[in-house]
Amino acid sequence: MKTIKVNLGKRSYSIIIGNNAILKAGRLIKELKIGSDAYIITNATINRLYGLNLQKILRASGINSKIKLIPDSEKSKSLELAYSLIKDISRFGQKKKIFVIAFGGGVVGDLTGFVASIYKRGIAYVQIPTTLLAQVDSSIGGKTGVDLSQGKNLVGAFYQPKLVLADTRILNSLGQKQLSSGLAEVIKYGLISDKKLFDFLEANSKDILAKKQSALEFIVGACAGIKARIVSADEKEERGLRTILNFGHTIGHAIETAGNYTKYSHGEAVALGMLTVAEISKNLKLIDAATLKKIETVIKKFKLPSKIENLNLNKIIKAHYLDKKFIGTKNRFVLLKKIGRTKIAENIPLETIAYAIKKII
Amino acid sequence: MKTIKVNLGKRSYSIIIGNNAILKAGRLIKELKIGSDAYIITNATINRLYGLNLQKILRASGINSKIKLIPDSEKSKSLELAYSLIKDISRFGQKKKIFVIAFGGGVVGDLTGFVASIYKRGIAYVQIPTTLLAQVDSSIGGKTGVDLSQGKNLVGAFYQPKLVLADTRILNSLGQKQLSSGLAEVIKYGLISDKKLFDFLEANSKDILAKKQSALEFIVGACAGIKARIVSADEKEERGLRTILNFGHTIGHAIETAGNYTKYSHGEAVALGMLTVAEISKNLKLIDAATLKKIETVIKKFKLPSKIENLNLNKIIKAHYLDKKFIGTKNRFVLLKKIGRTKIAENIPLETIAYAIKKII
Repeated sequence: MKTIKVNLGKRSYSIIIGNNAILKAGRLIKELKIGSDAYIITNATINRLYGLNLQKILRASGINSKIKLIPDSEKSKSLELAYSLIKDISRFGQKKKIFVIAFGGGVVGDLTGFVASIYKRGIAYVQIPTTLLAQVDSSIGGKTGVDLSQGKNLVGAFYQPKLVLADTRILNSLGQKQLSSGLAEVIKYGLISDKKLFDFLEANSKDILAKKQSALEFIVGACAGIKARIVSADEKEERGLRTILNFGHTIGHAIETAGNYTKYSHGEAVALGMLTVAEISKNLKLIDAATLKKIETVIKKFKLPSKIENLNLNKIIKAHYLDKKFIGTKNRFVLLKKIGRTKIAENIPLETIAYAIKKII
Repeated sequence: MKTIKVNLGKRSYSIIIGNNAILKAGRLIKELKIGSDAYIITNATINRLYGLNLQKILRASGINSKIKLIPDSEKSKSLELAYSLIKDISRFGQKKKIFVIAFGGGVVGDLTGFVASIYKRGIAYVQIPTTLLAQVDSSIGGKTGVDLSQGKNLVGAFYQPKLVLADTRILNSLGQKQLSSGLAEVIKYGLISDKKLFDFLEANSKDILAKKQSALEFIVGACAGIKARIVSADEKEERGLRTILNFGHTIGHAIETAGNYTKYSHGEAVALGMLTVAEISKNLKLIDAATLKKIETVIKKFKLPSKIENLNLNKIIKAHYLDKKFIGTKNRFVLLKKIGRTKIAENIPLETIAYAIKKII
């Protein structure tokens, strides 16, 4: 079991990582003194596998709870659903001291955090992420939000949880595709700031894909540590430090959008995005061909795509320029200087980007 | 012209108070570098009187703007309207650097602040309060929110504005009843922490009711100063310092609720609430009968009620126990030790409360 601290003054909190971490939920939450009544937001699959168990663990520490199921798809990240959850929470009991638990993947976490941020001007919430992607990324850092038809996460808040409990045993419930999607973010962490993690991934892909607990604990711990450090230094993305977390995401988002969010999962698109910026980094002579090859090999090892199929260049480029991170025509890329080290570059010419994308089409 | 600072580290901001303060809107906002496109939320009356003028002032500083009218009633404080405003803002232009202006009373301010707090995880907003109540109270301190059928302000955020511009000349547009409603809060500030302000009110009621600019500037400045000091010390109501701002409000809210929000305005109900707690304070021998009389006299001078009419005791008591500030059966009152000095008391017996209410029925 590993504990990592996110240091944000009064908003500091712990991330507990490990096999069966969920068994500690009752005791840890009780110690936080955040309330006696848990409103648990989860999806049907997680509820079937672990719902009653979580309620039992909470009850043993004197915490009453109610489970609310939501569909586990991006469509759930809507203002309408947030609204209906808030009304349901207020019916759960206004005299109770309610807190919220996000028990699921990124969708559950983003929506739950947002609901917690605006109910009674903010009530406490706990993240119990159940996908690898959520454990290493979205459950940490307080970015909450829902989508509008005009764009993803257009409505939301920076609102930190009181605790993150990443139970690596729960990752056993993930299918191959979901696991790989999370692994793309793990590779990202290695590339942007932890050569040791990258080397571990290169050497232990079999154990990881077989969901060996010690391997999962190591990678989740390493990634959560990096994310915690970055969030502690730049909570609201004001100092530009969180920018490096976007490594591979600019082109990745464009690929996701161009594929209508159905052709590629987030992780698959990020893998392709990382390959593209690695290619750009090579063309700008920041890294050598051997490093690029190494990255491609690791991506393939984790059953992530290394070629873009059935999407044309123009569609990707067009989606790229619609990215909400662009104001005017400026662009901004996180490039690679070496494995574990990044460099921010602005105004990369369109031809350079197009050339790199073409390489993997 | 008076400037008061709310000190909250990175979230600090200025309150500018005075005759024609609005003329400075363009220059001040430009200096803040919060954006180039203002989405102004206001009501029809304020828009007719000052809308074009504000747009002209902004344009002179290179700020483009759009006016959005909302109905000026508590019903506007809904999640549905917040949602539709957010969609409208996102249509205003995603490539623009948008900020929001709340140009109206408390309803406009609470709703606008909430919308600003959740759009793109928080965009800048400016308060230009146009009622006395909003200038001395709701525009300062970052409490934003909308109502649910289960209760007022059940959804919201603590989210500070970047600037508050309190133009006392705009108060000329207020009717007698609206002015008096705001004056109840002004009396409150005098009672809880500023004997000089209370003495000023006692001596200058005619000038104030005649909306003499120098008198209005003095009282708005004094109140904003007190509120700014309290908010600076206890932004999120965690240290209990903001509690004294609830002076007269616990019973006041019960009276408002018992009267279905139609019999008494907020200020009128607060005046009656203040009289009730002054009576309790007298009965607990914290203040003498002469002080109580003095308070009653000032309340009457400002055309605020000193007797509860057409409401029965039981209805008020029942509404009192439904107040969201009560958890379980505990109650908590801000009492008066002398003019300008309060004392917090818990678990005041029901008979004591009922006895005090009966005195003014």
